[in-house]
Amino acid sequence: MLSTKDNYLLTKTGPGTSMGNLLRQYWIPALLAEELPHPDCPPVRVKLLGEELIAFRDTNGKLGIVDEFCPHRKVSLFFGRNEDCGLRCAYHGWKFDTDGNCVDLPSEPPESKFKDKVKIKSYPCEERGGVIWTYMGPPESKPELPEQEWMLVSDSQRYISRKIQECNFFQALEGGIDSSHVSILHSGSVGGLGVSKKSNSTTFLAKDTAPRFEVADTDYGLLIGARREADEENFYWRITQFLMPFYTMIPPFAGAPRGGHAWVPIDDENCWVWSWSWTPDRDLTEEEIQQMKSGAGIHPSLIPGTFRTKANKENDFLIDREMQKRGESFAGIFGVGMEDHAVQVSAGPIVDRSQEKLGTSDTAIIKARQCLLKAVKALENGGKLPALDPSSHRIRSASVLLPKGVPFQEGAKEALELREKDFEAV
Amino acid sequence: MLSTKDNYLLTKTGPGTSMGNLLRQYWIPALLAEELPHPDCPPVRVKLLGEELIAFRDTNGKLGIVDEFCPHRKVSLFFGRNEDCGLRCAYHGWKFDTDGNCVDLPSEPPESKFKDKVKIKSYPCEERGGVIWTYMGPPESKPELPEQEWMLVSDSQRYISRKIQECNFFQALEGGIDSSHVSILHSGSVGGLGVSKKSNSTTFLAKDTAPRFEVADTDYGLLIGARREADEENFYWRITQFLMPFYTMIPPFAGAPRGGHAWVPIDDENCWVWSWSWTPDRDLTEEEIQQMKSGAGIHPSLIPGTFRTKANKENDFLIDREMQKRGESFAGIFGVGMEDHAVQVSAGPIVDRSQEKLGTSDTAIIKARQCLLKAVKALENGGKLPALDPSSHRIRSASVLLPKGVPFQEGAKEALELREKDFEAV
Amino acid sequence: MLSTKDNYLLTKTGPGTSMGNLLRQYWIPALLAEELPHPDCPPVRVKLLGEELIAFRDTNGKLGIVDEFCPHRKVSLFFGRNEDCGLRCAYHGWKFDTDGNCVDLPSEPPESKFKDKVKIKSYPCEERGGVIWTYMGPPESKPELPEQEWMLVSDSQRYISRKIQECNFFQALEGGIDSSHVSILHSGSVGGLGVSKKSNSTTFLAKDTAPRFEVADTDYGLLIGARREADEENFYWRITQFLMPFYTMIPPFAGAPRGGHAWVPIDDENCWVWSWSWTPDRDLTEEEIQQMKSGAGIHPSLIPGTFRTKANKENDFLIDREMQKRGESFAGIFGVGMEDHAVQVSAGPIVDRSQEKLGTSDTAIIKARQCLLKAVKALENGGKLPALDPSSHRIRSASVLLPKGVPFQEGAKEALELREKDFEAV
Repeated sequence: MLSTKDNYLLTKTGPGTSMGNLLRQYWIPALLAEELPHPDCPPVRVKLLGEELIAFRDTNGKLGIVDEFCPHRKVSLFFGRNEDCGLRCAYHGWKFDTDGNCVDLPSEPPESKFKDKVKIKSYPCEERGGVIWTYMGPPESKPELPEQEWMLVSDSQRYISRKIQECNFFQALEGGIDSSHVSILHSGSVGGLGVSKKSNSTTFLAKDTAPRFEVADTDYGLLIGARREADEENFYWRITQFLMPFYTMIPPFAGAPRGGHAWVPIDDENCWVWSWSWTPDRDLTEEEIQQMKSGAGIHPSLIPGTFRTKANKENDFLIDREMQKRGESFAGIFGVGMEDHAVQVSAGPIVDRSQEKLGTSDTAIIKARQCLLKAVKALENGGKLPALDPSSHRIRSASVLLPKGVPFQEGAKEALELREKDFEAV
Repeated sequence: MLSTKDNYLLTKTGPGTSMGNLLRQYWIPALLAEELPHPDCPPVRVKLLGEELIAFRDTNGKLGIVDEFCPHRKVSLFFGRNEDCGLRCAYHGWKFDTDGNCVDLPSEPPESKFKDKVKIKSYPCEERGGVIWTYMGPPESKPELPEQEWMLVSDSQRYISRKIQECNFFQALEGGIDSSHVSILHSGSVGGLGVSKKSNSTTFLAKDTAPRFEVADTDYGLLIGARREADEENFYWRITQFLMPFYTMIPPFAGAPRGGHAWVPIDDENCWVWSWSWTPDRDLTEEEIQQMKSGAGIHPSLIPGTFRTKANKENDFLIDREMQKRGESFAGIFGVGMEDHAVQVSAGPIVDRSQEKLGTSDTAIIKARQCLLKAVKALENGGKLPALDPSSHRIRSASVLLPKGVPFQEGAKEALELREKDFEAV
Repeated sequence: MLSTKDNYLLTKTGPGTSMGNLLRQYWIPALLAEELPHPDCPPVRVKLLGEELIAFRDTNGKLGIVDEFCPHRKVSLFFGRNEDCGLRCAYHGWKFDTDGNCVDLPSEPPESKFKDKVKIKSYPCEERGGVIWTYMGPPESKPELPEQEWMLVSDSQRYISRKIQECNFFQALEGGIDSSHVSILHSGSVGGLGVSKKSNSTTFLAKDTAPRFEVADTDYGLLIGARREADEENFYWRITQFLMPFYTMIPPFAGAPRGGHAWVPIDDENCWVWSWSWTPDRDLTEEEIQQMKSGAGIHPSLIPGTFRTKANKENDFLIDREMQKRGESFAGIFGVGMEDHAVQVSAGPIVDRSQEKLGTSDTAIIKARQCLLKAVKALENGGKLPALDPSSHRIRSASVLLPKGVPFQEGAKEALELREKDFEAV
C-alpha cells in the first residue's frame, strides 16, 4: 500500500515532475540502432517521458534527438528531409543539426541574422550495444553510459527488442522485480525461455511458491535474494538486481541465455519495454534466435511496422482457455513476456496503489519504491544518486543452490560478479 | 422537461449515487445462463452500474460474481483460472471462492494468517429463467427473486437475448414505456414481431397516432393505459406496465409471442438491453425462433463473440433509405428493436432533459420519472419500495378492445392477471 | 507569436464566442449542391462552427438547414423522412419545414395547439456556384451572397471539392495566406497543379525562397504582395487576397486553372477545406478534371462515401520516403493540397501560437490575425465589417513580372481586376 501522493510521485515522469527529474539524470535507451540504419535515413519519432521527439542520423553518421516540432510554426519534423548534415522542415525549409542549431533558414533574406536566434531542443545521443541512447537531463550532470554485460558482448551474442506496453512504466518495472510471480504466472511457460520443464530450477520454483526475500541496498540500487526450499539442506536462491532507475535482471536458468529489461516511460500511461538476451561465452544459436523471435520467451511478437504486440488488450491478449487448461500457460497467454504484459496492463494504466494489499512476498517491490523515493529526495537535496557510475552496472544476477545458513551474498559472491574473461574470451 | 438536477439524479447509477442505491435494492439480470455453461468454465467479465465484475461458475456449479480485480496488486481476474472451487489469479495464484473468501494464498508462507484478512467484493447470484441474477445491495435488505411470467414458463417457451446499447439506461427505459412511438417508428416493421400488417392492432395503431394516456400507481410501479380510437363505439387499449426499477412489458399482438425488457445500466453512458419473448401456452415454433434470431423483431443481431449489434452508431445503424422510402421501416433501419436502439442512441449518451419539449403523449414517461424519484426519496427516508414482493411481478400486459366508457382497469381486469393455469398446463 | 488570449479568441468559433459571432455575420459554404441532388432526397448531417445541423431539400426543392435534433426528446432527425414538404422525425413523427416550423405533430390529439409552440432552429440557405450556402447569424444583419469569380462562371468551367481537415480552421487558413512555403513545401509538386516544372514561375519560386511581403488593408480584407527576385531588372510578384472571413485565393500559374479556398470551422479541432478551380474564359478540359480528381493538385482524393482523405494522420499521410528523396514531393506526400494538409495537421489540433517563432516571411499571417481581431472588435463596437458587400469579392489574384521600383498595386492593377467580359464571353 502506498499513499496517493507517493503513487503520484512514482508514476509521473513528464518535464518538471520529481520522478521525471530523477530519470533525466540517467542515460535512457531510446531506439534500436537498426531503426536509424544509415546516414540520411528517414527520421524516426520517439516519445520519452512525455516528450515528443524525433531522432535522426545525419550525413556524417552523427545521431541527433530533437524536439519533434519546428520552432517556427510548430509543424512536425517527421515530414522533414534528413540531408546534408541536418534535418530540414518540409514547410519552410528551416534546417537543424544534431545539436539543435538552425543551420539554414531559407524563408528569410540572406542578410538576416534571425537564424542565429533560432534553436531547437536537442539531447545528446550515443550508440552502444545495438541501442541508441539519449540523455535528457542538465548537461552539467551528464554521466558516462552504463556498462551492463549485454552491452559489452559482441553483436552475435545478443538479441534486443523493444515494445510498447500500455501501462505506467513503474507498474511494469514492479513485475520485473517481483520474483514471486515466477512460480505461478510462468509455471507453464518457462519452456519459452529455453528452459527444460524438468530442470532443477523449474522443480524448485514449482515446489515453493512463497519465496522469502532478503533485500540489500547497494550503490546501484537493490540486490534481491529470493529464497526457496530446495531440499533439507539447501535453499534455492534466485538473486536479481534492481539497477536504478529502471533496469531489472533476470536470474539465469542453466543453459539458457541470460536476460534483462529496461522499463522506460513513453508517457504516464504507456512504457517502452526493452528486453535483451545474451550469452556471455558463445554466440546465440539460430534456434535460440528463432525462439526469441517467436514471442515464446521474454521478447515480443510485434505487428509489422510497429512496436505494438500482436496480442494486446484489444484482443484480450489472444487468451486461449484450452492452452490454459492444459497448463501450457497459467494465464492462457502465449509467451513469458506477454504473460507479464497482460496481467500488468489488466490492472489499468496506473494502478491505484492506495488500494493494494501487499504481503511479505512484495518485500522487494516495497524496497524498490523506497529506493526511488529516496533518490528523488537525494536529487532535490543535492545528495548522491545511485548507479551513475558505469562500472556499478558490471554485475550479474544469479540462481544458486546454497546450504541453509550461508548468507546468499557470500555464497553467491562469485556468481554475482561480472568476470570480463567470460565474454572477452569469445 | 426535467431539471438538470433531477436528470442527473435519474441517470447516475454508480456506487453511492441515489439512483445507484435504489437499483441496488433489486435483483439485477447479469448474464445469460448459457454464458457460464458448466462448472469450471472460463470466467466472464460483466460491468453493472459502473462496477467492473467477473462472474464464474465453480466446480460445484455454484455461481459467483466478484470484483474483477485481485485485491493484491489489482490485476484482472479475467486471466485467472476457474478450478477446484475457486477463481485463482494468474499473477500470484491468490484464489477466491464464490463468496469472495480468499481460500488459497500460495505466495505467502504456509504458516501465514494473511489469507484470513483478504476478502474480495462478492455479490450473491441466482439462476432462474435462463438468466443469472445478482444482488448488489446491502445483504440485510435482499429480497426474493421477482416472478415474471417469462421466468416461470419452460425453456422451450422462451427466447432471451441481451445486447449493449450505447446510451444511459433511463433513455432506453423511456422508450420501453412510450407507447405513442409505436404508431410511427414501428409502423412499417411490426411484421418483424410476427404480426400481420393487416391485423386489427396494426390498423388501430396506424389510424390513431395520438394515444391518450391513463396511468395508475401500483405496488410494482405503474399501470399504463394508452387509448386509441378504434371505431365509434370502442377504444383500442394498449396496456403496459413499468415494473420497478427497470422492467417494461410489451402489450401483446394477437398470435405473436409476448415480450418484455429489462434496461440495466452498464455505466452511465451504456446499458444492457435484455429482451425476452415467450408463449404462455405452447412451445415457441422454429419459425418464431428464426425470426427472433434474424433481428427483425425486438431481439438483436449481434457481432459474433460480442454483445454489440451489427447495426450500430458507427455505421449509422445500416440505414437503408430505399427501405425507408418503401415504408418497410419508418426509420430505414432493420428490426423493431434496432429502430428504438437507433433513435435513442442518436440523442447522445445522456439526453439533456432540461431541453426537451414534452407533450401529453409523454404522460407515462413523466409518471415513470416521478415514480423513480419518489422511490429514491422513500429509500432515503426508510419508506417502502415498490416491486420488492416477487408476486407483484405476476402480471400481464394487455391489448384489448373496450366499449367507450368502460374504465380500462375494469374492462381488462382478467387480461392483466397472470393465470398460472395458462402456462402450468404445458 | 500571439498571446494565449488572442490564440483562444482566433480559434474558438462555437455559439457565443467572439470569433463565432464574427463568422456568423457571413454566408458560409455548407454543402456541395450535389449532396442534396433532388427534392425529398435523404437529409444530410453537417456540422458547422460547433453546431450539429441537418440539411434537406424539400418536395418543392426548397433548402433547409435545421438543428439535427428534434426538440421533443432530442433524437436525431438524420433518421427522419424527408417527404411532403418537411422533415419528419422517425420517433414520433413530428415534422418540420425548411423554416423550422412544426407543420405536423401526430402524437398529440388533433385539437391540440401544442404544435404552434414548437419550433426548431433553422438557418436560411441559398444555392449558388454549385454550393449550398447558409447564414447562421442574426436575421437583421444578413448580407447578400458574395460574388467570387468561381461562383460566376458556368458549371463546365468549375470544379469544387470539400474535405475534412483535422485541425482548427485558422491553422489551415494561415497556410492559405502563407506564400513563402510555396518555394519549399510545393517545390516538387507544382506539376500537380498543371504547371510545367520548367515554367518561369517555377524557376522564380525556386530561385528566391525568401519573399518580401507588402500587405495592404482593403475593404474585403488584405491584399498581399510577395516579391521575389526575378532578374536584375524585375521582381516576380505573387499577389493574393485574404477575403474575410475565411477565403484565400491562389495566384495563378500561366496556363493552369485558377484556384481558391474557404477554410470553415467544423468545430474547434476540425475544419472543412473547400477548394475551387476554374477557368475564366474556357471550359475545363477532361485532362484537367482528371488531374483534380487524382488528388495531385489542391483537390483531395477521398475515402468513398466520406469527406475524409485517403491519406490522413492515422497513416502518416501515406508518406513515401523514396518520392521525397527523388524530390517529387518535398514532404514525400502526394498532392499539393495534401502537403499542406499534412504539415498543418502535424502541428496538433490547435497550435499554441504563444510558442511560435515568426520571421519576416510571416508578415501576411500576422496581418491576417490583426485583420480578424480588428473585425471582432468592430462587431462588438458596432463598427463596419469588411467583405460584406458582395461586389468586394469581385477581385483576382495575380502573378506578374514587374520592373523594380514599380509598386505592385499599380503595376498589377489590371490583373487584379475581375473583368466580367473574361468569363461572360464564354
